[in-house]
Amino acid sequence: MSKLPAILSRLDADLDASLARLSSWLEIPSISTDSAYAADSRRAAEWLAKDLESLGFTAGLRETPGHPIVLAHRPKPGAPHVLFYGHYDVQPVDPLELWDTKPFEPVIKEIEPGRKVIVARGACDDKGQVMTFVEALRATIAETGDLPIGVTVMVEGEEESGSVNLPAFVRENAEELKADFALVCDTGMWDRHTPAITASLRGMVYQEVTITCADRDLHSGLFGGAAANPVHVLAKIVAALHDETGRITLPGFYDGIEEPTNQQKADWADLNLTEDEFLGQIGLKHSVGETGRMLIEQIQSRPTCDVNGIWGGYTGEGTKTVIAGKASAKVSFRLVGKQDPETIAAAFQAFVRERLPADVSAKFVAHGASPAVAVPVESPALRKAQAALTEEWGRKAVTIGSGGSIPVVGDFKRLLGIDTLLVGFGLDDDRVHSPNEKYDLSSFHKGQRSWARILQALATEGA
Amino acid sequence: MSKLPAILSRLDADLDASLARLSSWLEIPSISTDSAYAADSRRAAEWLAKDLESLGFTAGLRETPGHPIVLAHRPKPGAPHVLFYGHYDVQPVDPLELWDTKPFEPVIKEIEPGRKVIVARGACDDKGQVMTFVEALRATIAETGDLPIGVTVMVEGEEESGSVNLPAFVRENAEELKADFALVCDTGMWDRHTPAITASLRGMVYQEVTITCADRDLHSGLFGGAAANPVHVLAKIVAALHDETGRITLPGFYDGIEEPTNQQKADWADLNLTEDEFLGQIGLKHSVGETGRMLIEQIQSRPTCDVNGIWGGYTGEGTKTVIAGKASAKVSFRLVGKQDPETIAAAFQAFVRERLPADVSAKFVAHGASPAVAVPVESPALRKAQAALTEEWGRKAVTIGSGGSIPVVGDFKRLLGIDTLLVGFGLDDDRVHSPNEKYDLSSFHKGQRSWARILQALATEGA
Repeated sequence: MSKLPAILSRLDADLDASLARLSSWLEIPSISTDSAYAADSRRAAEWLAKDLESLGFTAGLRETPGHPIVLAHRPKPGAPHVLFYGHYDVQPVDPLELWDTKPFEPVIKEIEPGRKVIVARGACDDKGQVMTFVEALRATIAETGDLPIGVTVMVEGEEESGSVNLPAFVRENAEELKADFALVCDTGMWDRHTPAITASLRGMVYQEVTITCADRDLHSGLFGGAAANPVHVLAKIVAALHDETGRITLPGFYDGIEEPTNQQKADWADLNLTEDEFLGQIGLKHSVGETGRMLIEQIQSRPTCDVNGIWGGYTGEGTKTVIAGKASAKVSFRLVGKQDPETIAAAFQAFVRERLPADVSAKFVAHGASPAVAVPVESPALRKAQAALTEEWGRKAVTIGSGGSIPVVGDFKRLLGIDTLLVGFGLDDDRVHSPNEKYDLSSFHKGQRSWARILQALATEGA
Repeated sequence: MSKLPAILSRLDADLDASLARLSSWLEIPSISTDSAYAADSRRAAEWLAKDLESLGFTAGLRETPGHPIVLAHRPKPGAPHVLFYGHYDVQPVDPLELWDTKPFEPVIKEIEPGRKVIVARGACDDKGQVMTFVEALRATIAETGDLPIGVTVMVEGEEESGSVNLPAFVRENAEELKADFALVCDTGMWDRHTPAITASLRGMVYQEVTITCADRDLHSGLFGGAAANPVHVLAKIVAALHDETGRITLPGFYDGIEEPTNQQKADWADLNLTEDEFLGQIGLKHSVGETGRMLIEQIQSRPTCDVNGIWGGYTGEGTKTVIAGKASAKVSFRLVGKQDPETIAAAFQAFVRERLPADVSAKFVAHGASPAVAVPVESPALRKAQAALTEEWGRKAVTIGSGGSIPVVGDFKRLLGIDTLLVGFGLDDDRVHSPNEKYDLSSFHKGQRSWARILQALATEGA
């Protein structure tokens, strides 16, 4: 541990340079879901591979049917070996007009006295988070000439589009990816001062449905009153997905979910998360979640269903008296416990088909299906990381559930047989997936310091 | 009447040249609802004014707060005077990918043996229809050196965006627009072989509603399960607009509508319009209209409600796990009888507001409101036109109701005190407002001949 103070001092001194590095990565618009940005995705991957190579990793790009994966190794025989996972792709930026600054021109802003943030698409999710780990590696190597443990870094470019090619890659390269456990930096803190380790993640089923009525768009003056309108059909389906108590109405949807223990309920009650506190930051006051559940339960440990997008007919300026031929929606379900993704995808499709009037058809595109995962909360690695985080932040690191989904955690367990330690420094107000995404400089800086501490801690013997 | 055969022969000989003229007008993308095409709208207006000037009209553009109005006069003291109305603006062209050819590059196609059509945005609605009248004027003047009656031509550029500036223009220029009655060429035939005069038109209320929940787009993994989703709120509202029998549920919506007489029902039954015949052409088999009403009643004489567009959240390629801050819909109602547009607009807004959960707000944009109108079916002018149409087409011209709305007809009655004769040559399969809009060459050619006959007929004495 004696080397740690020097490493931490180096990180403090190097903060501006590390921000410049992050900025140059953020300038590359690596939007994975839009094929127009494929070349940019590759550039973002190359940027990271080159940086890791400069740290003494054997690093390069590995091809997939989609965007390449950055894979880098720095083994240390005899020491523990970790597999770090992150992603270099970012969400689309629309609606662009709601950004105060350009999404791929990072800026540093002081949003309240003493609180600086970096604003850009990917500032938090996940480039900023990935770089907390990379900067910890850099400072450790610079200060000590080595790392205390062996490290493999795998950073993919398709997390925001469902990680469709990652499971096959992990399966085919299981031997090369072998590690004692995985580290992931793509999660959040409890609040701005309290670090957290995420111990459970919701799964996800994402389906796109297109309803077709007539074989073309129609003039509502000629055909209105007789021709089926796909927007009406789709609206009735969406409206039927939740009942008046906020429960999701797909038959069998809640199968495989356990009720929380009394201890769990007591822990939640202690955290005392209020609607004002959680929803107030986004201009809301009332949860629309399941009646009779605590807010924290609704957002962390209960399954959800949200329409993420809907479109049909004329959506431009002014008017058009059209009855659309088609209307579409993107619908996602967050899963918990032992809910089965395939069963729920099938239940959704059946639910839609049962509600189609005569003449009307539905087509589906599956955008991914992954189960919920839970990580053991009593592992030695988790306890070491928890102690290191507590040391850095001066507050006890809590273990939390996350509403988000990181399917790779399930893949690591299933395909590599290893558990994952999820440590991240995102905040609820980071506007992840929204305009004006940001990352607090305190998250970025103390995140680097946290990883430096965790790397040293993981090298120590015993539990 | 002795001059008519020569005029008709001239129209026959001049068909190719008249098609070339129409094509050059169709090439101008005069999309009134999109401000990006404002200069094109003006060009389309100038094109027509110049053409009318070449026919000896005093013609020019008259400015409005929006797009200009083409106004042209050719008086004939002592003879009847008619006010012809049409519009030079066209609908937007999206979805562009569904067009087989470019919307503003007109092409002539043979869609079945012996049946040729011209394909372009505006081919029928309303440039093609307007030019049937203009070509009849041209041939009559060329052959006889004069017109048999006085003619004012008023062609506006905002019909597809609700004719918002037309009523004020008509009111302010009532003296200049004085006429015995109005002619409008913006309606359809009964079928490809049977001409029709439209005797009633539905009115229209067009509202755009935007539902706002959170003050930004949210990550569904962080906020899903608690934050209100505006797409869900909007879907529930749209789903509630119709009941299971196809009736519209706005309170008081059906006030002011009379039931059809037994004679009207018998006339409808005689026309024997079947679902196969009417909906089969667009790939449907079953009407979703009000249970217990004949199909022809549903589409012509009953009020309707259609969502013409809906959008919210992520609508691009792939996935985005977002809960939108806002979602919007464009909703239009077709009105009949004495339904009051303002009352219905207010009822719609109240209907939406009553269905908003806590924290959720709605904003409205009104895109126009006009009542239904009926024209007298026993006027001398109508009988003369009916005889002329019957002569041209070899089938008795029928009087029909139209599901569409042409608010100017109500304006002419209210502001100028004149009735309107609605004669048009559109067909149900013209794909008006849809990709691949077309106009049959038989409509274009025999439409010109029909107007030539009507012009001569209107000059004759008596009933």
